[in-house]
Amino acid sequence: MIRVTVLYANKPGGKFDFAYYTNKHMKLVKEKFGPMGLVRTEVDKGVGGMGAGAPPQPYVALGHMVFNSIEDFLKAEKVHGGALGADVPNFTNIEPQFQISEIVA
Amino acid sequence: MIRVTVLYANKPGGKFDFAYYTNKHMKLVKEKFGPMGLVRTEVDKGVGGMGAGAPPQPYVALGHMVFNSIEDFLKAEKVHGGALGADVPNFTNIEPQFQISEIVA
Repeated sequence: MIRVTVLYANKPGGKFDFAYYTNKHMKLVKEKFGPMGLVRTEVDKGVGGMGAGAPPQPYVALGHMVFNSIEDFLKAEKVHGGALGADVPNFTNIEPQFQISEIVA
Repeated sequence: MIRVTVLYANKPGGKFDFAYYTNKHMKLVKEKFGPMGLVRTEVDKGVGGMGAGAPPQPYVALGHMVFNSIEDFLKAEKVHGGALGADVPNFTNIEPQFQISEIVA
């Protein structure tokens, strides 16, 4: 199994609409990628307020997509990546970073 | 539930011993944090060879620890963080970054 993690860095002026992201964008992800090998998704929200002087979390948000294989993800991305990428400005002005990993333990 | 993600950046000269990390370090994490609110762990290994000219993944490895609450994690870290941190040089020369997130979906 592989995990594709989409990371949204914490930066000055960065905006992120969690309601849109979880209710609409991830719904679209499931609709498009569900029939193409997507196993499950998860959404992480970086916590704040860890105490006075504590630095902010490096990322505002992380979206995780677990696929059966890299081949499944690449095929799904090729077909639907454009539509999903076009939805990004609807919830954030932060450029997403991608991390593709094998889940080894 | 919260996820503490430990990120090991891909950098020139960076070394990472996955056998030690999964078999020994994460075993130690479970021993120490298991009785203190740790729910589960996962280990991601950044994939390479995504094709000619493809950039490397941003991270060599990511370790995920899911806890019931931030309070549980902070307490566990206060008690055992030193021992776990002291084990890091046994598997990598990469400075770990920490991301603490609430799992919202």
